[in-house]
Amino acid sequence: MANRQITLAQRPTGMVDQSTTSLIDSPMPVCGPDEALIKVGLLSIDPTIRTWMNDAPGYLPPIGIGDVIRSGGSGVVVESNSERYHVGDVVNGMTGWQEWAIASESNKFTVLPKGLGLDLATVMNVLGATGLTAYFGLLDVGAFKEGDVVVVSGAAGATGSVVGQIARARGAGKVVGIAGGEEKCSEVVEKYGFDECVDYREARLTQRLREACPKGIDLYFDNVGGDVLDATLANIAMHSRIVMCGAISQYNATERGGVTNTSMLIMRRGQMKGFIVFDFAHRYAEAHVELAAMVLDGRIKHQEHLVPGLEHAPDALNLLFTGGNHGKTLVVVDESVQLD
Amino acid sequence: MANRQITLAQRPTGMVDQSTTSLIDSPMPVCGPDEALIKVGLLSIDPTIRTWMNDAPGYLPPIGIGDVIRSGGSGVVVESNSERYHVGDVVNGMTGWQEWAIASESNKFTVLPKGLGLDLATVMNVLGATGLTAYFGLLDVGAFKEGDVVVVSGAAGATGSVVGQIARARGAGKVVGIAGGEEKCSEVVEKYGFDECVDYREARLTQRLREACPKGIDLYFDNVGGDVLDATLANIAMHSRIVMCGAISQYNATERGGVTNTSMLIMRRGQMKGFIVFDFAHRYAEAHVELAAMVLDGRIKHQEHLVPGLEHAPDALNLLFTGGNHGKTLVVVDESVQLD
Repeated sequence: MANRQITLAQRPTGMVDQSTTSLIDSPMPVCGPDEALIKVGLLSIDPTIRTWMNDAPGYLPPIGIGDVIRSGGSGVVVESNSERYHVGDVVNGMTGWQEWAIASESNKFTVLPKGLGLDLATVMNVLGATGLTAYFGLLDVGAFKEGDVVVVSGAAGATGSVVGQIARARGAGKVVGIAGGEEKCSEVVEKYGFDECVDYREARLTQRLREACPKGIDLYFDNVGGDVLDATLANIAMHSRIVMCGAISQYNATERGGVTNTSMLIMRRGQMKGFIVFDFAHRYAEAHVELAAMVLDGRIKHQEHLVPGLEHAPDALNLLFTGGNHGKTLVVVDESVQLD
Repeated sequence: MANRQITLAQRPTGMVDQSTTSLIDSPMPVCGPDEALIKVGLLSIDPTIRTWMNDAPGYLPPIGIGDVIRSGGSGVVVESNSERYHVGDVVNGMTGWQEWAIASESNKFTVLPKGLGLDLATVMNVLGATGLTAYFGLLDVGAFKEGDVVVVSGAAGATGSVVGQIARARGAGKVVGIAGGEEKCSEVVEKYGFDECVDYREARLTQRLREACPKGIDLYFDNVGGDVLDATLANIAMHSRIVMCGAISQYNATERGGVTNTSMLIMRRGQMKGFIVFDFAHRYAEAHVELAAMVLDGRIKHQEHLVPGLEHAPDALNLLFTGGNHGKTLVVVDESVQLD
């Protein structure tokens, strides 16, 4: 039996295309001492994967040419020589874009909770890196407090939608989304319950943010960078906090747009602070409890965009940049892998 | 007797020129109840004055057309109806560009300490807004800690030179300046004792900063913004702190250069934080004690650039942007005003 894998053939310029990746058959991995063999079920398609394809400094080394594309994912343990994992456990971690993965000391997986009444796709969305990023970014990095006027870009996205809903549940003064296009903006308000949503594709973004937040923005959760970040900087309130989470507008860009309003941080005594969700790994359990409760009682609405077939993972990644996805994008490698 | 004043005639585009200001004779101000009349001695010429001339949002309202140019300065109390001031006190505050000023409830002055053995120009430099900005920016906003690799732009300037010297005295791992031209860079190393100085006018700034700080920058004190900020962002270490103090490269700019490397804040979990020294007014006394001691025992070297004559204040302001000044720029309105 072979292990189908998607590897990096050459580094992309802009969007990923045919020449970026190769679909290959490799030998099945062997489960060594203290290791477990995982049959991959779902892949988590995240914007950060695109950054790992560049030969540029990052929070993780670039993916090597010829290496399997690094990616989060979940699967079921089918063989185990490790005390950490039991056959039948559903686990989440760095599977890579492939059908079979090895859990080891250097590549640890989290065993997912069963019996919560949440399906695997939901858990990978709200309780996965996406939801955890929203939780720690808003509450810890952004030091959210009741009454804050909160603005979130990528508001229809998997992380942004959860940020706004947590802010709402915790008593934000106002929650304003930024998204691309009328359909997404409607979704942000109707489905995710934001007070308002501003379409970044329309003109006069700075002015429209001013109208939405006449007293200024207390907390801005930035998923996109570039011009949108610049427009929010022009509208920050005193002691504003900007959570630097992502810069999706820049990941495919060959020429990056510059941010010109950084001086507003001086005028308004503001701060921009970056983070990576892995920094909070020791506190995931506390977030899981609250996030699960919020999903179960309906305070967090969520949506998953399932793309069938490992071979479509590159297209699924591009969806994040074209805005063609709705909600958390997951690739179904093996639909038999389920949580309950 | 008249009060010579410099007022804002029209808002400048780029550098201040003949048409920007008017030199006028106004009636002597009258010292009302709870007020004091101040004979102005020295004006503090700071880059921020240029920002107040723009019709743009700032931390203070723009200077109105026809109003006296807002400015720090010092003088001697010649008449007082206030318990706060006694005739003969030398005071520091917002004098404006004029020969006579009024201290009032809405425009309070600080009485300067006599008998320290420090002359008025030195006190206005190191113990004035410039030195206080260096002190609180480095130690509080930047949360400086022993061993930090510190980079300071505007390193030959009044604030930057003090930042580097405090960092040195407090045990920085390395202190690297950024300044414009060979002469200033020499001064930064020879006179102010920085380990190294990088000339921003030469090519490959990002690369040269990397050579100077191979393990990355722990703390960057930004006085200039724009391209220099961008080059330092590309070189930040993990958990780096960027102190947003000024953006002198942008104040005269009609088109502002964009910062493209803000994503480094995510990769390196860094932060950019802005401040205004006024926020620390309640703690000036603690800084005065330490800064005075450091000047007296030679740990802080300093330099004042004296420009004689109120009428030359606009030219003095331009010097800050052409780099034609050496050290803290002060305009001598009346040389008879002395501290000792």
